[in-house]
Order: sequence, then structure tokens, then C-alpha cells
Amino acid sequence: MKLVTRSLALASLSALTLATAQAETIETRWADVDVETVAEGLNHPWGLAFLNDGRMLVTERAGTMRIIEADGTHGEAISGLPEIKVMRQGGLFDVKLSPNYSSDSLIYFSYSEPESEGSEITSTAVARARLEDNALHDLEVIFSQYPKEEGGRHYGGRLTFSDDGEYLFIGLGDRGHRQDDAQTLDKHTGKLVRIHPDGSVPEDNPYVNEEGALEEIWSYGHRNIQGMDIQPSTGHLWAVEHGPQGGDELNRPQSGHNYGWPVITHGEQYGGGEVGIGFKKDDMELPVWHWTPSIAVSGMVFYDGNQFPAWQGNVLATGLRGQQVARLEIDGDHVIHQETLELGQRIRQVQVGPEGYIYLLTDNADGKVLRLSPAE
Amino acid sequence: MKLVTRSLALASLSALTLATAQAETIETRWADVDVETVAEGLNHPWGLAFLNDGRMLVTERAGTMRIIEADGTHGEAISGLPEIKVMRQGGLFDVKLSPNYSSDSLIYFSYSEPESEGSEITSTAVARARLEDNALHDLEVIFSQYPKEEGGRHYGGRLTFSDDGEYLFIGLGDRGHRQDDAQTLDKHTGKLVRIHPDGSVPEDNPYVNEEGALEEIWSYGHRNIQGMDIQPSTGHLWAVEHGPQGGDELNRPQSGHNYGWPVITHGEQYGGGEVGIGFKKDDMELPVWHWTPSIAVSGMVFYDGNQFPAWQGNVLATGLRGQQVARLEIDGDHVIHQETLELGQRIRQVQVGPEGYIYLLTDNADGKVLRLSPAE
Repeated sequence: MKLVTRSLALASLSALTLATAQAETIETRWADVDVETVAEGLNHPWGLAFLNDGRMLVTERAGTMRIIEADGTHGEAISGLPEIKVMRQGGLFDVKLSPNYSSDSLIYFSYSEPESEGSEITSTAVARARLEDNALHDLEVIFSQYPKEEGGRHYGGRLTFSDDGEYLFIGLGDRGHRQDDAQTLDKHTGKLVRIHPDGSVPEDNPYVNEEGALEEIWSYGHRNIQGMDIQPSTGHLWAVEHGPQGGDELNRPQSGHNYGWPVITHGEQYGGGEVGIGFKKDDMELPVWHWTPSIAVSGMVFYDGNQFPAWQGNVLATGLRGQQVARLEIDGDHVIHQETLELGQRIRQVQVGPEGYIYLLTDNADGKVLRLSPAE
Repeated sequence: MKLVTRSLALASLSALTLATAQAETIETRWADVDVETVAEGLNHPWGLAFLNDGRMLVTERAGTMRIIEADGTHGEAISGLPEIKVMRQGGLFDVKLSPNYSSDSLIYFSYSEPESEGSEITSTAVARARLEDNALHDLEVIFSQYPKEEGGRHYGGRLTFSDDGEYLFIGLGDRGHRQDDAQTLDKHTGKLVRIHPDGSVPEDNPYVNEEGALEEIWSYGHRNIQGMDIQPSTGHLWAVEHGPQGGDELNRPQSGHNYGWPVITHGEQYGGGEVGIGFKKDDMELPVWHWTPSIAVSGMVFYDGNQFPAWQGNVLATGLRGQQVARLEIDGDHVIHQETLELGQRIRQVQVGPEGYIYLLTDNADGKVLRLSPAE
């Protein structure tokens, strides 16, 4: 794979505006890919949703949410957000439109919710609200991780609706200092949670009838879920999570299954040293794929657009430290090939736009929205 | 992964012999690996077997077979081989000891067998003979590909015995110019064949009762099988084969299954252009893993030694153009991670020695046997 920088000549240039849109082209096996910046000036953008009128909704980890216009400009932050504790990895996380957005105008978002004003004791929480013009109305917190925890790490925070819109999956983390809690069912930390969009608990969740277990839990043994998506061909949920040093994982989380953290992992402690008991244990799921060394996996999506026909059904997973998009070819529940697209920037999230282009968020204080399209 | 060159001081140096054994160290995730040359001066070595007395048996594609002494020296070629047509990719291929070698002294080997003396019309054939001192006796051809074909490409040639020694698997190729024959059952080209060690056909082979089909066939739709091994934990056969441009494959060939060549592949014609109909088709198996771009996959083995505990059960697959060993972590029938060991030389075959060290053959006119051991 070679990286080539070239200039895209614009169709028309006024005498006073000598504008050049720079695009890099990445050569891959099945497509040459143009990488263009479509928006910039975003403070650690984290979540991205398409409003389907050419505008995008972007969250910034710094605690703000903005509408990006079709021309890439953006103005005032959206008002009406709850108090958000911005600290280390914590702040505003993901955003998704309601499955019925065209009729209910609801958006769902996740964030670090403080115990009281200014407190560093926080939960990963999920709220929904009506988006009107540039303001949120009728805000309602539909989930808040139990218990609230100290520390500024491993919040999870990714949101995904099921295909039918009946369920909302929330990816959580172990909050860094309490990794053993990922194996206990009386806390939300280190879990993947499944609720209805109104916050109620589905009757067929795996632990609704188990005493001492939290009924929102769908699966457990997760370290820090950072990306999730529904596989178009099956309706199955897939998720990526950060490993320790090495052992970033792609999983297909199933009801009541144990994904092993911190008992089994392909990673090791930072600086070396074993974690847990090794790679395998009965009744614990091995990952579908793992990245070792770690790419610091962040977002993921199944590609289902028309711009890159050879990538249909592939997983695209982004890397922060890895500065990449990993393209994984899937057969059934398994990876049969990986190709890496080197972006040279920390990538936080990937989404597929309504026209089938691929959009990326870069993770820095002057964060960008990048667009991938087939090179001509 | 970093490559470090260092000198191994020898324990004792005589005044007149200033010898230094150069070893490179490759740093990998779970082990730092010393790479040492243990024999050299071999003409395109292709197959390797351990005689279990510290000596090794090595085939050279140029049509010769040699015993390598424990100190790396080798002398006269073994006498008594049949006529072998050495041409382009053709010549002497693999060698395996009989499952009962300690009592029967038989070796099995594969080679390009000419129709008549000097003819370029050849079969990939398998013979067995008793090895005594430096000569073969009682030579017997137990398999010969039907029909004999022109052309000097895609012979296959890899041999593997089942765990119980009852079956011999022979990996074949499409002979290059007749790729459609890989889909027909009336020829051996493009097939994986299963026979008893005496050349007879097992009664439970999939096509023994199918009119017009060759009864030696085990599986079909193969382009050019270059590596095979039995998975220790299951007894299952796995194999690697060359794709066209891209699409080198790892498969688990099962009785009567179709591995898709030339109908489905992840490769394309050299210089570009589609092969077949795409990636998928009902009733054709997708690969467990594919290398795209191609590494020109050659040998493979399951690692089952004690020198590299973290690699137990991993597939090690070698690359010619890829100049590497690809280490694949396996869960069930699936790859969950790949790590590449860059060797900087074309590698033809990999085998695990009786002490658990890993031995590689380099593919050139001054070919070497390399040994991988844990760095101290």
C-alpha cells in the first residue's frame, strides 16, 4: 500500500480565491482511496451521526456537540446538554439518532455523569433528548452505570441500536482500577448492556431472573468497549475493545457470554508481565480477532455502502495509536483477511454516510472529519 | 518487530580457527528468536525430514537428496532415485519418513515424473524406497498424477501422513495452463489426493463409488498446494496453496469439498483482471485465511514443540516472495491473529525438529537450513 499526495483541481476558481482541496490517495488491493478533509476545528471528536439532510451531528469529548453543515462549517455548540465531567478519557462520548428520528427528533448520547456538581465520581450514562434547531429539549437520562466510580479511564461509551430499533446496546468499560469487577454480575462496569430505547429492561435479557445480578447486563468480561455495530447480513452485534498492552479484541457479544477480561487476554500489563491465566479458559469466549501489538482500537462499522463494492460486509475498525483503518474480511463469524489503511493520524470513529462514503473522526484538539471515496 | 544482528561467542576458539556463528535475533510479541544457519550449499532445498539421530534428510529441487550430518556438513547425493524431470518449478519435491521408519526404513518422496526419458510431459508422482546408508533400494512408485501434462508450473508436491499413519495426503496443482481441470473429478490436477502408504485407495474416499471420478481424490478446486500438516489437537488436515496475484489460501480440506479454484478466489490475474466470479459461491469453501497481496506461500506446519510455549498450536506458514514466516493463532477452525516474522530470504519450507526448534529451508541456489531458537 502506497501513500500518494496529489492535488484535486477544483472545477472553478474565482480570481481572488485560490483554493486547493488537498487529497491523499491510499492504494489498496481493491480500491484506490481518496482521503479528504470535510470539516476541521473539532475538539477531540468522538461520535458522528448523519442527519440525512447533508448535515452531521458530531460530539466532542470536551463536552460539546455540534452540527456540521454540508459545506463543513460549524457554529455554536448545541445547548441543553446535562452536566458532563470532562476528565482524562471522560467527557461526551457517542451520539446516535433515534430509530424514529424523522418523527420523534430524539437523539441518544453517552457521557461521563458526575455524582454531584463537579464531582470526579462518575458513571457512564446515556440520555436522550429532542433536537430542535440548535438545542436539546425534554432531556431524559435512560441509563447510568452502577456504581459510580473514581478514576478517569475505561468508560466505554459506544451506542448501537438493533436493526428493528427495539434495543439499545451500550458498551461499557472496567473503569481502569477495578478490572476484577468485569467478572461480577452485580455491577455494570466491564459489561455490555442492553435496554429498550425508553430505558426499560427487555424481558429476555439473560440475568433478569438472576438474584444479585443487574438485569441490564447482556454480556460481561469486557475491558473497555470502544466500537460496536450490527452486522447487516445477520443482525448480530459485534464490538471492539481495548486490550491492555496488546490484545485489542473484536468480539461478537452474545447474551450471557463471558469475554474473559481480566482472566484471559492476548495482552500483557504495560511494561510487561502477565495478565490473568493466559489465552484460554472453558466457558470464556476467545476473540474473533485480536490486534497484538495493540492498535488502540476505537470505532468500528460494517461497510454496507455502494462506493466500495469489494468491501461489502467488511468490518472497518479504527486505531488511535495505530493511526489506521483495519479492513477485515468476514466469513460467518470469522475473519479471513486483514488489510491496513495507514492514515497517519489517530482515528477515533468510522461511520458510513448515506451515499456510501466512509467518514472518519481524527482524535486531536484540532480534530477533523475525513471522507474516504474511490479515487477516479 | 525489530531485527537485530548480534554475534554469538563460541565457547572455545582454537588459535588457528577464528570462527563466529552469526545469529540474527528477531523480536516478536511472545519470544525473541535467534536465527542461525545450520547448513548451507543446498540447491533450492524443498523438503526436510528428521532422521531422529541428529541427521536430516533434505531434497533439492535440482533432483538430488542429501543427508545433512549433525554438524551441518553433507556429502554425496543419495543414489537410486528415479528419473526426475527438472524444469522450471519441477524437480524433486517433498520427503517424509514412513510412519514405521524405525522398522521399515522407508522414505516417501514426490517429484516430477517424465512420460519417457527426457520428456517434458510429466506427472507429479510419489515413490517410496528403503534408505540404507546413502542409497535407495526397492523403489516403488505408489502414485502418479493422471493425466500427464505439459508445462513446468503448479506441480503441488507436498506430502503428509495422517496421525495414525494409515493415510498419505498428496497436495497437487492445476499444472498452470489447465486451471478449469481443478473443477472436474476425472483428473488429478488441482486436487488433494488421499491414498494408503502402499498406494491403494481407502474405501471411504469420497468418490470411490462415483462413475467417471478418480477414486484417489479427497478434495478439489485447488490451484497449487504447497504446504500441508495435521493439526495436533484434532487430527485434521490443513493446507496452504498459491493464489494467482493475491489470494494465497489457508484451507482445512475436507472429504469431497470444493475449494473454489478457479471459480472463486481473492486473487486476480497477474497484471490485473478478474478471475472467476468473485469471492463467494454456494457449495464452495472460503479459505480459513488468505494472504492478499500474496506472500507466495510455501510450506506450513503446526507448531507443537516446547521451545516456544506461547506458539503451541499456531500455524507457521512460509513465504517465498514474502520472505517470512507468518505465525497464525488458531481458535477452532479459525485464525484469530497473524504475526509476521521477517526473514529477508525466500523460505520454502518449515518443520519442527525433535527438540522443538523450528527449521526453515531458504529457496536459492546456495540454499540454507536455518534454525529458530529462543534467544537467551
